[in-house]
Amino acid sequence: MVDLYIMRHGQSTANRDNIFTGWSDVALTEQGIAQAKIAGQKLAQANVQFTQVHTSYLRRAIQTANIVLEQIDQLYLPMRKSWRLNERHYGALRGMNKDTAKEQFGAWQVQQWRRSYVAVPPLLSRPEPKRQYPLGLEPRGESLEMASVRLLPYWQDVIAPGLRQGQNQLIVAHGSTLRALIKYLEQIDDADIMQVEVDNGSPIHYQLDQQLHIIKKEFI
Amino acid sequence: MVDLYIMRHGQSTANRDNIFTGWSDVALTEQGIAQAKIAGQKLAQANVQFTQVHTSYLRRAIQTANIVLEQIDQLYLPMRKSWRLNERHYGALRGMNKDTAKEQFGAWQVQQWRRSYVAVPPLLSRPEPKRQYPLGLEPRGESLEMASVRLLPYWQDVIAPGLRQGQNQLIVAHGSTLRALIKYLEQIDDADIMQVEVDNGSPIHYQLDQQLHIIKKEFI
Repeated sequence: MVDLYIMRHGQSTANRDNIFTGWSDVALTEQGIAQAKIAGQKLAQANVQFTQVHTSYLRRAIQTANIVLEQIDQLYLPMRKSWRLNERHYGALRGMNKDTAKEQFGAWQVQQWRRSYVAVPPLLSRPEPKRQYPLGLEPRGESLEMASVRLLPYWQDVIAPGLRQGQNQLIVAHGSTLRALIKYLEQIDDADIMQVEVDNGSPIHYQLDQQLHIIKKEFI
Repeated sequence: MVDLYIMRHGQSTANRDNIFTGWSDVALTEQGIAQAKIAGQKLAQANVQFTQVHTSYLRRAIQTANIVLEQIDQLYLPMRKSWRLNERHYGALRGMNKDTAKEQFGAWQVQQWRRSYVAVPPLLSRPEPKRQYPLGLEPRGESLEMASVRLLPYWQDVIAPGLRQGQNQLIVAHGSTLRALIKYLEQIDDADIMQVEVDNGSPIHYQLDQQLHIIKKEFI
């Protein structure tokens, strides 16, 4: 048996302001920092010893992970950062207020973009290269499915092998990438994933067997 | 040409209280956090793009590195943590007030332990294993020379190859390990290293050529 904990970053300025974010590199709010601390204290109470921590290239996730490691007194752990754990790329929606988007595109369409598996947001006309991202792979916008396709290789190549060796892993990532991972782990239908949300700063614990089947799931 | 920046962590509680520390895992003070922020702002002004960051297993260095990365907006960088970058192990002195040590052992002896290359502090009767350290390699106390011997393989195997590929590197470490590194880089005599001190939170910039010879050194 091995322990996997997954957790969304604390509240960001974009969460607070109800703005589509994606790959925009927004900071945590004071409330987000407090949420990360509380999550870390819960993990400290759970008394779990991790082997490795995984997070994205985005500061809201990295800062959350750093705060959690500080709280559990495991700052020395290796922390791997990957663009594959980044939030889904919201394309031309990024930076737009969600209520403005509803007025412009209608509530049904916005809900599809936000929660469905396959809906692709309006794409950027060209990708926005940044030095940390692999050239040519920067998306112009992603459905949850597209985010899942670039997320799962990281799960398969890095996280799952560690778990199979009995190494407890912590993932600090984003709403959409964690929904994609939950869908994969729990084999949730494309339609049913609409209902799954992941709250800021709320760790989810999976106890897994050697084949990485779920023995227990709990919200801590 | 390639840029190497080395920097000691900000003020720790033990620095503030004038206590021998070594591998004791003390936190930054408020002043230490402020020093780290200022150092980060100086590096931001220097406009340097790093490829990798190196730090120890000790929280005062890791926290300093995280604050610096936040200030230079490069939190996404890979951060490698190694026990080889840890502060020199102060043996049985760790936790002792430096003035108390002077009363007990004399000012000359304490100065030798603190600044000479070869003086070995009183050893612990047995090592204190912690899960993150390689079993069997935990020191019971180290001279600066002994710290240098376990530090240099990390320089040779990890940092120097990156520099030779033109990748700018940042090291956030400790007074003694940075003194050992400076001694090595600048080929300082065993006797002359007595005079070298490294201040909390003050980055040193080395510009190096392809053979890693020093072209320029500056305190920023």
